[in-house]
Amino acid sequence: MKNILVREIYKDKEEFKDKEIKVSGWIRTSRSSKKFGFIELNDGTFFKGIQIVIGNELDNFKEVTKLSVSSAIIVKGKLVLTPDAKQPFEIQASEITIEGESPSDYPLQKKRHTFEYLRTIAHLRPRSNTFSAVFRVRSLASYAIHKFFQERDFVYTHTPIITSSDAEGAGEMFRVTTLDLENIEKNEEGKIDSTLDFFGKETSLTVSGQLAAETYAQAFRNVYTFGPTFRAEKSNTARHAAEFWMVEPEISFADLNDDMDLAEDMMKYIIKYIMEHAKEELDFFNKFIDKGLLERLTNVANSDFERITYTEAIDILEKSNEKFEYEVKWGIDLQTEHERYLTEKVFDKPVFVTDYPKDIKAFYMRLNDDDKTVAAMDLLVPGVGEIIGGSQREERLDKLEDRIKEFGLEKEDYWWYLDLRKYGTTKHAGFGLGFERIIMYLTGISNIRDVISFPRTTKSAEF
Amino acid sequence: MKNILVREIYKDKEEFKDKEIKVSGWIRTSRSSKKFGFIELNDGTFFKGIQIVIGNELDNFKEVTKLSVSSAIIVKGKLVLTPDAKQPFEIQASEITIEGESPSDYPLQKKRHTFEYLRTIAHLRPRSNTFSAVFRVRSLASYAIHKFFQERDFVYTHTPIITSSDAEGAGEMFRVTTLDLENIEKNEEGKIDSTLDFFGKETSLTVSGQLAAETYAQAFRNVYTFGPTFRAEKSNTARHAAEFWMVEPEISFADLNDDMDLAEDMMKYIIKYIMEHAKEELDFFNKFIDKGLLERLTNVANSDFERITYTEAIDILEKSNEKFEYEVKWGIDLQTEHERYLTEKVFDKPVFVTDYPKDIKAFYMRLNDDDKTVAAMDLLVPGVGEIIGGSQREERLDKLEDRIKEFGLEKEDYWWYLDLRKYGTTKHAGFGLGFERIIMYLTGISNIRDVISFPRTTKSAEF
Repeated sequence: MKNILVREIYKDKEEFKDKEIKVSGWIRTSRSSKKFGFIELNDGTFFKGIQIVIGNELDNFKEVTKLSVSSAIIVKGKLVLTPDAKQPFEIQASEITIEGESPSDYPLQKKRHTFEYLRTIAHLRPRSNTFSAVFRVRSLASYAIHKFFQERDFVYTHTPIITSSDAEGAGEMFRVTTLDLENIEKNEEGKIDSTLDFFGKETSLTVSGQLAAETYAQAFRNVYTFGPTFRAEKSNTARHAAEFWMVEPEISFADLNDDMDLAEDMMKYIIKYIMEHAKEELDFFNKFIDKGLLERLTNVANSDFERITYTEAIDILEKSNEKFEYEVKWGIDLQTEHERYLTEKVFDKPVFVTDYPKDIKAFYMRLNDDDKTVAAMDLLVPGVGEIIGGSQREERLDKLEDRIKEFGLEKEDYWWYLDLRKYGTTKHAGFGLGFERIIMYLTGISNIRDVISFPRTTKSAEF
Repeated sequence: MKNILVREIYKDKEEFKDKEIKVSGWIRTSRSSKKFGFIELNDGTFFKGIQIVIGNELDNFKEVTKLSVSSAIIVKGKLVLTPDAKQPFEIQASEITIEGESPSDYPLQKKRHTFEYLRTIAHLRPRSNTFSAVFRVRSLASYAIHKFFQERDFVYTHTPIITSSDAEGAGEMFRVTTLDLENIEKNEEGKIDSTLDFFGKETSLTVSGQLAAETYAQAFRNVYTFGPTFRAEKSNTARHAAEFWMVEPEISFADLNDDMDLAEDMMKYIIKYIMEHAKEELDFFNKFIDKGLLERLTNVANSDFERITYTEAIDILEKSNEKFEYEVKWGIDLQTEHERYLTEKVFDKPVFVTDYPKDIKAFYMRLNDDDKTVAAMDLLVPGVGEIIGGSQREERLDKLEDRIKEFGLEKEDYWWYLDLRKYGTTKHAGFGLGFERIIMYLTGISNIRDVISFPRTTKSAEF
């Protein structure tokens, strides 16, 4: 008898109505009297479980009704619709096989655990309601991103994880080495001889795939990366992890407006995809984690995002009567309090802020004609603040070389990046979306450690 | 005027017939007389380019016809169908804007370059026919894999890249550190004090996501990983890279037969997806890279894969009259020559070989009742040999502990992996597909360095 997935039954209960079927899964709850037992079985394929009714005519009635939470069983029985009950259907078991028992010291009992405790059993926490919902949403959001870009014929580019350039300039890096650190060889100058290392030079973990993705955008026009990136920053916050995933599209023959159009379309696409494919999970988050979640997501999916310049934003902030912790004046980097004021209080919808002062942005962003600002954009969303950062890239060779010099960087380190401006350069743009940020946004989960399967943060790389 | 992508025109030329349109892209070839110029423009969205016809009535006729290969231009003009010509349509230009010129020292001129040379300009090589085809197929194959698993409701799990366990046991690892290697601190015993490192302990780059994926399979039933993995092995071959991507599904309540069914379905799905979505690219490979390619792929997509045991395979090999370099006897690890003989000469289609001697396979594979073999499977395909390796996982706690001991490993290092066998264990299985292997298989490209955007191999981590 073929095994039926619980998801299939929820999709079309009529198909299985009054039929003998086989399901298998893990016990979430169990209660029994002398005559009957009731098990809520979850098979992992659907957020909700299925009720199994066991009568004492079963040979192993006693054994089965004594099973602890998380025991694995295989059930044969008839699917019966129960329109008057809380659950839409149940299985009246005719045979139950015990696949794997779980002893009573199972660390994830049916009670409220703190998220901190659950992190210590990260190998078991996806068996809980909250984390099964988080990680299914994470999977669906990943797919929504691929689907969005592939439907638009973007080429998915796997940019390197190990990099020999520290030219990415986005933060502190992890060193990657096969040198025997206990017995490290030094050269005549008393320095480590990196030519003896695996790659014959110093290498690190990437902080961004952008520069490499730009090379592919100049061949395929529209590309995106989606892979892990790393920051060796010892900031112990709820929003930072040492290892996280980034989505970085790059588009050619495109300017900052095209870039914002793409970001806006992508955000709406992801939200709609999750609202359609993870209804049960979003309802759960909206009820137990973040009461305004569904309203906020619906609002974002249906609004036209606002677009204002940095200079306008500063003007609004200066004229507001809000008391900010950080002083507002032209030239500052916007703080989360400023960003949230703009997106939540002033506009009550997502806002693109564009054309930031050149001194607070990266060297590769396109210099505007005012010579003071660059064609950058940040997307601010209610409840979070910045979620996307992007820019039109400097496509003019001479300007880019000037900027590299201004930043105290070496032209030689960027030879291949500069080549793109030499051989058929085009206007182009791109942005980066921190993937965990959007998972936090979609779920209402406030700590990044709770949207990563096995999070890596300062002093923590368990499992 | 909205820019039209060349892909859109190939998709539905009638839609644009006799209309004024705008396209933009890079010059692939250019030739001209006094009166006319012909440019083959490639905009990156489609393998083939589009012919631009320029008459000398254009203001900048001279300038445009002198442009070198790879110059970027924006073209306005009428799309005219040309049923009698080699190309299906052309654009009669009414206006051409030069976006970015390319000087004549462009390193990727229209002539045959060796693959070795092209690796030195890996930032430009996707602009060539071969590499534009390779990397579009790579993108489409990635998507096909996601689509295959998501359509079956598998949960995509991002397993960690940085790992503190060397428990994965699949090969040499890269160390990840933020210690200042030039001035490394040692403790009283003269050893490096790893508690001072970023994560407070020794960490490395993952060699496999399998063990972590198994934890999620025991929650979601069916999961897959798809991410970068690393081997610090100094083997300088055409089939090994230090950084490569792996696909690793894990399925619960499943045995080795289910595992093979899944692998077979996945392989066929990927091949069919590429045959449908990359026709032009496959025709190109079939013509210029690997003449038997299309026939081989069609054959694989439509055949039932053979399934034989290792013991049967040894028997076949022993009874053959083939002269092998490596001696054949029960207990040996099959060599590529043996694998290819089986799949190419004996069966002429893909072959699963199952139930290998336990001593040549990993500790986590399920011990068979004969106590000599494990429930492992390798998939061998014509032209390549092994492309997938998988197994049913040992779900019995006592047997798994025995195997860990036999392998000289420490039980304590596997506490969370063993927990899965304690708390509701189930039959389960999984496999690994080296993603680059299948790209090589789909394209006929024989060196792994030519299917990775910026390959990382011994002594080489350029760009």
